[in-house]
Amino acid sequence: MHRRTFLSLTPAIAAFAQGRPNLTELYGSAAARLIAAAQADDGGWKKMMYLCDRIGNRLAGSSSLNRAVEWSAAEMKREGLQNVKTPLVKVPHWVRGEESAWMVEPLESKIVMLGLGGSVATPPEGITAEVVVVSTFEELEQLGAEKVRGKIVLYNEAWQGYGRSVAYRAAGASRAAKLGAVAALVRSVTPVSLRSPHTGQMIYTEGVEKIPTAAVTIEDALRMHRLYQQGVKIRVRLKMEAKTLADADSANIIGEIPGREKPEEIVVMGGHIDSWDVGQGAQDDGSGCVACWQAIMLAHQLGLKPRRTLRVCLWTNEENGTRGGQAYREWAGATVKNHVAAVEMDGGAEKPAGFGLSIQGASEEVMVRAMERMQQIGALLKPVGADNMIRGGGGADIGPIMRDGVPGIAHRSSGQRYFEWHHTDADTLDKIDPQEFRQNIAALAVVGYVLADMPEKLTD
Amino acid sequence: MHRRTFLSLTPAIAAFAQGRPNLTELYGSAAARLIAAAQADDGGWKKMMYLCDRIGNRLAGSSSLNRAVEWSAAEMKREGLQNVKTPLVKVPHWVRGEESAWMVEPLESKIVMLGLGGSVATPPEGITAEVVVVSTFEELEQLGAEKVRGKIVLYNEAWQGYGRSVAYRAAGASRAAKLGAVAALVRSVTPVSLRSPHTGQMIYTEGVEKIPTAAVTIEDALRMHRLYQQGVKIRVRLKMEAKTLADADSANIIGEIPGREKPEEIVVMGGHIDSWDVGQGAQDDGSGCVACWQAIMLAHQLGLKPRRTLRVCLWTNEENGTRGGQAYREWAGATVKNHVAAVEMDGGAEKPAGFGLSIQGASEEVMVRAMERMQQIGALLKPVGADNMIRGGGGADIGPIMRDGVPGIAHRSSGQRYFEWHHTDADTLDKIDPQEFRQNIAALAVVGYVLADMPEKLTD
Ligand SMILES: [Zn+2]
Ligand SMILES: [Zn+2]
Repeated sequence: MHRRTFLSLTPAIAAFAQGRPNLTELYGSAAARLIAAAQADDGGWKKMMYLCDRIGNRLAGSSSLNRAVEWSAAEMKREGLQNVKTPLVKVPHWVRGEESAWMVEPLESKIVMLGLGGSVATPPEGITAEVVVVSTFEELEQLGAEKVRGKIVLYNEAWQGYGRSVAYRAAGASRAAKLGAVAALVRSVTPVSLRSPHTGQMIYTEGVEKIPTAAVTIEDALRMHRLYQQGVKIRVRLKMEAKTLADADSANIIGEIPGREKPEEIVVMGGHIDSWDVGQGAQDDGSGCVACWQAIMLAHQLGLKPRRTLRVCLWTNEENGTRGGQAYREWAGATVKNHVAAVEMDGGAEKPAGFGLSIQGASEEVMVRAMERMQQIGALLKPVGADNMIRGGGGADIGPIMRDGVPGIAHRSSGQRYFEWHHTDADTLDKIDPQEFRQNIAALAVVGYVLADMPEKLTD
Repeated sequence: MHRRTFLSLTPAIAAFAQGRPNLTELYGSAAARLIAAAQADDGGWKKMMYLCDRIGNRLAGSSSLNRAVEWSAAEMKREGLQNVKTPLVKVPHWVRGEESAWMVEPLESKIVMLGLGGSVATPPEGITAEVVVVSTFEELEQLGAEKVRGKIVLYNEAWQGYGRSVAYRAAGASRAAKLGAVAALVRSVTPVSLRSPHTGQMIYTEGVEKIPTAAVTIEDALRMHRLYQQGVKIRVRLKMEAKTLADADSANIIGEIPGREKPEEIVVMGGHIDSWDVGQGAQDDGSGCVACWQAIMLAHQLGLKPRRTLRVCLWTNEENGTRGGQAYREWAGATVKNHVAAVEMDGGAEKPAGFGLSIQGASEEVMVRAMERMQQIGALLKPVGADNMIRGGGGADIGPIMRDGVPGIAHRSSGQRYFEWHHTDADTLDKIDPQEFRQNIAALAVVGYVLADMPEKLTD
């Protein structure tokens, strides 16, 4: 549409009426250049290939995470980003070791599993015990200590969406241990399975006996539930060598395009460089790291030097500690108040949908104004389908600085299949469509550049 | 549509015009009873639960296959089928043993694999060699012996449908060995993967060096192909203990409803009771065995005693030898000529589509007549959506008797996802929808009963 009529009152006119520049008009040309550059870009995909195929998965404390830190910092320098830094972050060091689960009764057979991050080990000979199967915590409580004591508890909750189902992974072990269980198995948190176990972090409740805990596949959970419902006695042998070593050295990786007018003001964008110790950490969250990084590189390559500093941060240890996000807050110190926005991408690089904004402590008036500006930026993202701007954003890594009032923006993916791959051996580069990946880079490039360059701040 | 006009000349009228009874009309009532019984049936599902959860997968030579033979024969007797027999079949006895593949260069990392049935072992220390990656046999030939000698060949052919892609699994090892390769890896034959390896039978060409061979996942095949295309040296260590022992004892399992008028004439229906040594052999082919068996049980339970003998046969060793089908032919001896039809189900129990017919050596006139009768039977299957009757049928297990001219009928499934699960650890009971399973039983019950009871034969 090129024609404009009085009736189609555009944000531009509305803003003009209030005496503020309209971002859609102001940045139409820059956005078009960034989007075109993103769509022709191969640098992002080459980085993904290197990170996935040459470095691989990157659990906190692993040598591969260290290599990812070194490689990304060196690349940022080589590519001309400024003030490249890798401030030290002490991270938890959990090591999976050998592990297995085996049904010994009623049918000698393999159970496909992945230990949960943070779990303790079993004794070397394993734990062999009868299994009780429940669908929910309520069912567990109904069984009570008498029926749970000495048993392995299997939670077979059907997928209810990540936010709800993950409760069993996180808290299942301690809830079972309170009733005397000797181990806990959790149905993998996923809608789809090809005998696919999904790992993830678990958290022991203080003061409760720590029992070993692992995810099993949907298939194995259903199999055991069928047997249990028929009154068939099930016994399983669980062996896990998992251990938590002393905290290891890791780092956030930071690079910048310094602002041309207000270098002290900062827009930070990034994902988390660590991953689970399975697959390649491709969607989660290699894609977020590289898309944010490459978005800034495109501005750099086009010579678009924004008013404020545009910073990429690859946070470490999101998966099992979020120490990278906390360390960033500490490292930033008094400069936190200079962060005009923080953008996090950690939902995968499927087709982009848009962005979500939260500002902790902001008045409704500030939110309305900020969302109006977000919509103006969103209008620039229509060519890549990322124009749906909503209230509600943030992320694990930007959470600590958002608590200081920094506006937090979540990159939003269409997320069609993300949780099928999440925290599994199947989170590999082939799950990312190169064209969709470029659309994400384009969207982030425009959002980052406009936020860093716009005359006023989101909250002004 | 209830109205009939002269223009919509129905099969009934057409048949009447030729003085032959119309099967749609003749068996409308029996079909309705069988379909209603199938839709209310739990016996088939209980058999599937026992076979999958209590017996598990059933490779030729395994103790679990022996248990499946014993259990199914005992159940058939207990349920009142007649002439229950388990004639001995000598079957190949291939044992997988421990196996692994590990990338040692450029990145120490696991390669997810399954050895192919029939493969020889590696030396105990494994074979460690450089990998060459090709998409097709043509590319392999272009590389030639100079570039292939001493290497591990990886075939990364994109899914082209099972019939075409399976050629690399079957013949890849010997094609590579001819050029001096030391091992062969094949991309799993599947359209979809969550790091899912698919096993299956391979065949060595006589006179060519036998080299070990395994399927790798799509993910690992693509990863290695990406590295190879960048000129990165890849080295892999393959370890396989696979061995072929002396032939083992197995059996076909046979049960009958003897014919009330022509007991010497036989309709045989079945699937294969063996499976690969992964998953539960649920879709492939527990579903075919139990659906055919339960179809006959429904006729038995309703007191529908057909004119001819209605026989279920659960063939052994379809997967890696087809010895069950061959043994059935030998066991039948002169009675082969009394088989009026053979029905095989071996494509999974997704939503049924219909049936396909082949009669080797039949004239076009005979085929036209037979297909007309198949269409009349098909009309009875509309309530379960299995009414699409086509030319072209058969199956691995009924192949030997089809070569004697026995009409061969293939059960046809919609097959939406079959090859995602085929020959993997994910071929488990949960992949079968109980309601779709009942529709398959219904379709087989009607087809089997009508074929066994119809006044004339398909070919008359
Ligand atoms: Zn993540
Ligand atoms: Zn089969």
